[in-house]
Amino acid sequence: MFKKYDVIVVGGGHAGCEAAAAAGNLGSSVLLVTMNMATIAQMSCNPAMGGVAKGQIVREIDAMGGGSGIITDKTSIQFRMLNRSKGPAMWSPRAQVDRMRFAEEWRLMLERIANVDFWQDTVNSLIIKGGKVCGVITSLGIEIEAEAVVLTNGTFLNGLIHIGEKKFGGGRTAEKAAHGITEQLVGLGFEAGRMKTGTPPRVDGRSLDYTKMEEQWGDDERGEFSYTEVPKPTEQRCCWITYTNTQVHETLKEGFEKSPMFTGRIKGLGPRYCPSIEDKINRFAERDRHQIFVEPEGWNTIEIYVNGFSTSLPEDVQYKALKQIQGFENVKMFRPGYAIEYDYFPPTQLKLTLETKFIDNLFFAGQINGTTGYEEAACQGFIAGINAHNNVAVKEALIMKRSESYIGVLIDDLVTKGTEEPYRMFTSRAEHRLLLRQDNADIRLTPLGYKLGLIKEERMQTVNNKVKNADAIVKFVKSVSIKPEEVNGLLEEAGTSTISQNVKLSAIIGRPQINFSMLKEASASLKEFLSPYNQETIEQAEIKIKYESYFEKELEIVNKMKKMEDKEIYQDFNYNEIISLSKEAREKLIKIKPRTLGQASRISGVSPSDVSVLMVHISR
Amino acid sequence: MFKKYDVIVVGGGHAGCEAAAAAGNLGSSVLLVTMNMATIAQMSCNPAMGGVAKGQIVREIDAMGGGSGIITDKTSIQFRMLNRSKGPAMWSPRAQVDRMRFAEEWRLMLERIANVDFWQDTVNSLIIKGGKVCGVITSLGIEIEAEAVVLTNGTFLNGLIHIGEKKFGGGRTAEKAAHGITEQLVGLGFEAGRMKTGTPPRVDGRSLDYTKMEEQWGDDERGEFSYTEVPKPTEQRCCWITYTNTQVHETLKEGFEKSPMFTGRIKGLGPRYCPSIEDKINRFAERDRHQIFVEPEGWNTIEIYVNGFSTSLPEDVQYKALKQIQGFENVKMFRPGYAIEYDYFPPTQLKLTLETKFIDNLFFAGQINGTTGYEEAACQGFIAGINAHNNVAVKEALIMKRSESYIGVLIDDLVTKGTEEPYRMFTSRAEHRLLLRQDNADIRLTPLGYKLGLIKEERMQTVNNKVKNADAIVKFVKSVSIKPEEVNGLLEEAGTSTISQNVKLSAIIGRPQINFSMLKEASASLKEFLSPYNQETIEQAEIKIKYESYFEKELEIVNKMKKMEDKEIYQDFNYNEIISLSKEAREKLIKIKPRTLGQASRISGVSPSDVSVLMVHISR
Repeated sequence: MFKKYDVIVVGGGHAGCEAAAAAGNLGSSVLLVTMNMATIAQMSCNPAMGGVAKGQIVREIDAMGGGSGIITDKTSIQFRMLNRSKGPAMWSPRAQVDRMRFAEEWRLMLERIANVDFWQDTVNSLIIKGGKVCGVITSLGIEIEAEAVVLTNGTFLNGLIHIGEKKFGGGRTAEKAAHGITEQLVGLGFEAGRMKTGTPPRVDGRSLDYTKMEEQWGDDERGEFSYTEVPKPTEQRCCWITYTNTQVHETLKEGFEKSPMFTGRIKGLGPRYCPSIEDKINRFAERDRHQIFVEPEGWNTIEIYVNGFSTSLPEDVQYKALKQIQGFENVKMFRPGYAIEYDYFPPTQLKLTLETKFIDNLFFAGQINGTTGYEEAACQGFIAGINAHNNVAVKEALIMKRSESYIGVLIDDLVTKGTEEPYRMFTSRAEHRLLLRQDNADIRLTPLGYKLGLIKEERMQTVNNKVKNADAIVKFVKSVSIKPEEVNGLLEEAGTSTISQNVKLSAIIGRPQINFSMLKEASASLKEFLSPYNQETIEQAEIKIKYESYFEKELEIVNKMKKMEDKEIYQDFNYNEIISLSKEAREKLIKIKPRTLGQASRISGVSPSDVSVLMVHISR
Repeated sequence: MFKKYDVIVVGGGHAGCEAAAAAGNLGSSVLLVTMNMATIAQMSCNPAMGGVAKGQIVREIDAMGGGSGIITDKTSIQFRMLNRSKGPAMWSPRAQVDRMRFAEEWRLMLERIANVDFWQDTVNSLIIKGGKVCGVITSLGIEIEAEAVVLTNGTFLNGLIHIGEKKFGGGRTAEKAAHGITEQLVGLGFEAGRMKTGTPPRVDGRSLDYTKMEEQWGDDERGEFSYTEVPKPTEQRCCWITYTNTQVHETLKEGFEKSPMFTGRIKGLGPRYCPSIEDKINRFAERDRHQIFVEPEGWNTIEIYVNGFSTSLPEDVQYKALKQIQGFENVKMFRPGYAIEYDYFPPTQLKLTLETKFIDNLFFAGQINGTTGYEEAACQGFIAGINAHNNVAVKEALIMKRSESYIGVLIDDLVTKGTEEPYRMFTSRAEHRLLLRQDNADIRLTPLGYKLGLIKEERMQTVNNKVKNADAIVKFVKSVSIKPEEVNGLLEEAGTSTISQNVKLSAIIGRPQINFSMLKEASASLKEFLSPYNQETIEQAEIKIKYESYFEKELEIVNKMKKMEDKEIYQDFNYNEIISLSKEAREKLIKIKPRTLGQASRISGVSPSDVSVLMVHISR
């Protein structure tokens, strides 16, 4: 019934969509197998993309030619650049999206990729021959052959939903769980574990009193995720902020004895940094309120997502507590929050390409690797899709570096350190975060996308022009001076010291209080010079001038570490021969099989002295 | 957690949406309980509304203030008035719709009704006290109280999906079945049965060769379902027609030994007039081809619905046979067709209000009553919603007459005769179909909707004006003459006999070859007279003039039968006392408890002589 595909992608969430799109766009024939074609790219949790560190990931995916940024821009109902008041490394784009539109646009984007086929069915097992995956077997009993398989099963593997003391099988609310794959892989020697995540109740927006909440609007000038030209809605929708209070907390505590979290019925660990409300009031007992973000689910719907109120307490406790939140006095629920337990595979069983170490051409992406978050899933799907294609097309594997992308940090963290609780990205996880900014993801990564074949000539040229033009602006302001009488009015107004003799424009723009749009009003020659350049290019130049010295210092560190970082270790290196390694280091090194000395150094249990010993031996 | 509702509607399909909207718009507080809020108004089968007799039903729903017509107009991608070449009683509007948009617009329409609340959950049983329904109990164990409950469970009650020799529980593909309600009601004395329906495979439009098929476009002048002003898309999408052939039939026959239909695994009876392709080639062995309608699922999607190819043969047989259809040589399937068995309750257990006879304030609508079709479901939901409200508000029950609507025919057929196979509407089921036209549904039924409170003053006025203006046009053409020299050119051109002396305009328009838009070019006074009237009004006048004598004859029959039809029979009438009734008639009459003599006369097994006997006794 089916031809043999290059790549089969199992699952149609954020990871699956990016994987299918990437492999298909690169030229692989792809089959996307999903349980329900009507729920492709359905957002199971919050109707939003991006946020701190996560927004940077979406920008990185876009810079390399992935879809998440474009879909988000098309369907967003509100956009905010978080942390604008901090340094540019902290600026993080975040958008609320229309849930239905988001799913529809992803599906339509996939449908437009000629190489991507679709099949609605559930995969129950893999066909594996001689240590290599060769296809899948579905619940209809159909065998479909492929050169490579990407598993993106999300929360569906033996999914178990908890609400208070009730529990029932399911991959998401109102959807069936998937069985068989975990059991098969464990039988083949894989280690599997159990994780837990959760989601808040959805409520009827008509039942809320928004006058009792704080309005939260999007940015006046709407930013974007994609570096390409995407038609974006001009309007934005308002969100709101409200708070829990001690009364809410007391009510929730009444339900603790029926909580699947606290009574031990849930075995899996939940996401530490996206905790349930009961977790929050338990762990931060001293706090008498927590923020609740009241987020509309789309342009026209009355459905509201109660961000910050994830819970698996009994539904009547959820309801009683919700009603005690300011503005929620008359709340009507659409459905309760719930917790879900699902199977994952500790990601130390993966290579840095996201291929499994034990089964060739089998890739894992998303929650199956123990991560949480749409963006984390999407970028793994994207890389897995690329590497599945590269394997099939016999091309060099793509390994993202920690020094060039959050995606590299994420995958290296997973593969090198593993994770025992749902892993989410933070800026603090990236040692070179000064360089990994949302403003330069294109400069960092579009050349890579171009080399892979995901980025067209014209788009590459746009990035080259951005770099060239930003440099020209920097050169200009470093060479042209401004007189005190031209600029002192502006400086005074901005609350920074005046100048008494001519200085270079760059010295003025270097001051935190001053930006180009102010300064060009004081300097006619600057205004004229900037006129051909777009806002993005000018911003890039401004960031360069303001933070140049920090960036250079950071780059120096990267380059210093590069030698160690890139020092390769043969995959059949015999750690048992090095007697001076600590026992723990030896065990971990044998398990993880680091690809480089840099990776080896990040394995917990491998000490600096172990690294020194290793360095001596691998150099021989 | 929940207040006590006036009406709980269980299920969010066509029946559930209309029921919730009607009861809510009438002022009842309504809770719509659905398994999945993301699939409200999801079309499980073909992406189309209307068709012969079914289109009339949608017009009737709209005329009374229901939603199906408006939603269809908003989301249709193609519109055709079927049977335009036949008499106006046969004209039937039909539209292809965008499946995703249809669901979205219904949900948004429901969200805009202030009285309608939502709860995502599965109802497992009813709360019944003293022979009256008092609420529902959900799978979360929540008890929700209500004055009335409308069950619209579709194919979900103990749903069992068949594909070849495989079978699995499910209410629709990729969705769970519902359990508990059948068992409870049977325990209370209800009779339940098993029915079967099916759906064709969905395929990838990119894999079809449309050049090998016949194009089927919509009407140049797009008609509409709703009598209200609905913003309609200006574009339309093309559909295609192709055919099966003897090779396709041979291939399908190879699968017969694995067919759940022919091997007896499926116990329920399927829809005779919407048969599976294997049924068709089995029952009409002499035919060497069957029509296949190739219908896009929406504006932009590549997904195609293969109308006419409903099947539950093994998926590989489906695939092999599809590939042998002209234009389908390279077809790629998205998912196979399947059959589904589900529980229904023989509708003789209902009153003409759609309330059950055994449990007060419990209403059934849609497939649970043994019908098939979106339109049949929608109109039942609409009437059940109205009567649930009427019961709660202690208002007179709404009983639709056979002589005034297809809805009346449908409900009377169900309640009086029952059905042992999925019931669908045909024009031939209506003895007064000449009067039950799509063009006059507003004239027939909007006054009723107005009386109920579902139609606003302004809209009622529009209908009154239509009647008044059409009458004025009729009066004008009956009083104004035209000269031979004015009209003979036109008559000759139209291929009808010329006139030799002045005749009334009505005599000309009465001819089948002539319509108003032709005639007004020959008569300046007619042109001037018609100028203030809209197309709908002019068409109404034209139909009146052309078919007046038929309509009048039909009306006479209706009036003659009215006396018997409306003769009421007390519900506690003791049939056992009438010894001259035949045994069969007595049994059936006791079971059905007809409300009128007319209804009694339609019960199978009740002979004309039984009716005469009855007439004598009930007149006493």
